[in-house]
Amino acid sequence: MSRAPFEYRTVDMSDEEFAAEQAVYGGLTSALRRLNEASLRTTVDHDLIVETTRQVEEITARLEAAMIPANFGVVVTTSGHVRGYGNAVVGLRNPIAPPLKIVQDRERGSASSEFFLNALYEGPPGKVHGGVAALVLDQVFGEAAAAGGTPGMTGTLTLRYRKPTALGACSAHAWVDSTAGIKTTVKGWLKDAEGDVTVEAEGLFILPRWAREQLAESGETPPQYE
Amino acid sequence: MSRAPFEYRTVDMSDEEFAAEQAVYGGLTSALRRLNEASLRTTVDHDLIVETTRQVEEITARLEAAMIPANFGVVVTTSGHVRGYGNAVVGLRNPIAPPLKIVQDRERGSASSEFFLNALYEGPPGKVHGGVAALVLDQVFGEAAAAGGTPGMTGTLTLRYRKPTALGACSAHAWVDSTAGIKTTVKGWLKDAEGDVTVEAEGLFILPRWAREQLAESGETPPQYE
Repeated sequence: MSRAPFEYRTVDMSDEEFAAEQAVYGGLTSALRRLNEASLRTTVDHDLIVETTRQVEEITARLEAAMIPANFGVVVTTSGHVRGYGNAVVGLRNPIAPPLKIVQDRERGSASSEFFLNALYEGPPGKVHGGVAALVLDQVFGEAAAAGGTPGMTGTLTLRYRKPTALGACSAHAWVDSTAGIKTTVKGWLKDAEGDVTVEAEGLFILPRWAREQLAESGETPPQYE
Repeated sequence: MSRAPFEYRTVDMSDEEFAAEQAVYGGLTSALRRLNEASLRTTVDHDLIVETTRQVEEITARLEAAMIPANFGVVVTTSGHVRGYGNAVVGLRNPIAPPLKIVQDRERGSASSEFFLNALYEGPPGKVHGGVAALVLDQVFGEAAAAGGTPGMTGTLTLRYRKPTALGACSAHAWVDSTAGIKTTVKGWLKDAEGDVTVEAEGLFILPRWAREQLAESGETPPQYE
């Protein structure tokens, strides 16, 4: 493992270029999210599925003609925008992200999100996968810790599943419960469309030493996603 | 909430039809997984992205011409196969599933999986999203509980993140640590490509009363995914 794995690349990009990029990639990602769901729910003939597979492979080959070597990472633009496009929960260019739009409240040290979990996020029949509940809460919890001024990586996360969460509209909320030096305790919940709390959770977020040193050297605060 | 949300539909299907279906849908899902990753990593011109978006929308409209109303659920075939195609971690028809192939050991009450987490599963730059680690472990833990003869739904899940997990090859293992009536305690870990344990976890799996009643009425044991 590299000692400082959180390297933020910087690219030269104006506000206008950033907005254009968001529109173009955002459009493709939305279209792919809809295709992913249709591929699970469709009942068309096998012949059409085979033909669709061939077309998907053609499209993919064109996109693969020029690619970054591996993961997207986090990129900061010279105009000050932060692109965490690959993030599995909120990434603008990540078709597997639901995606969540998370609103941070820096005064209260909290974060909230309202989102929709469709058929792709299923575990038990008709219910949100227990691990998907953990996935979205981890992201909301991390953003609550950052909103509270003490960002960190997940140290521990404890989830209590009170009842199954129906697929559909959901909401999540998390807040900083306490802070002790580099450790921040965050609490929060997931609610279903009825407004019932289905999962309660508590997390400990820690800013590792190498990250503190890296931030101190750069004079920067950790970036927030756009 | 419905009292018995775990309804398993049954469809009339031979072994041959099941195998054909797996090949056809498996092919489409693999192609879509590759397209999803290419959409994140591509650096082709914006014009080609816009053109690709249009093509994706056309393909989607054809698949959407005939669809099941909502989530896929779990379907049992008359030949005895169980199709949990929509499952977010293992589903054959779910493009957002990595997917995991999980091997259960019924003698030891354990479950294991070796899998690859690509750029779509990113949290911190170059690292597996902490919530994705929770997602895959929840599934492996649930299958360990079932392998031990005491299936259940996640009651609590506690994750300890020991170090960041690099994107790439990973493995997970879980085992039944103890059983007390309807409650099963499962322990396990996630390892990175170096073989280092990056996340340790413990989960309590509980079979709710309505599920016990439903299973007793049907005379069935809970299905395992294929």
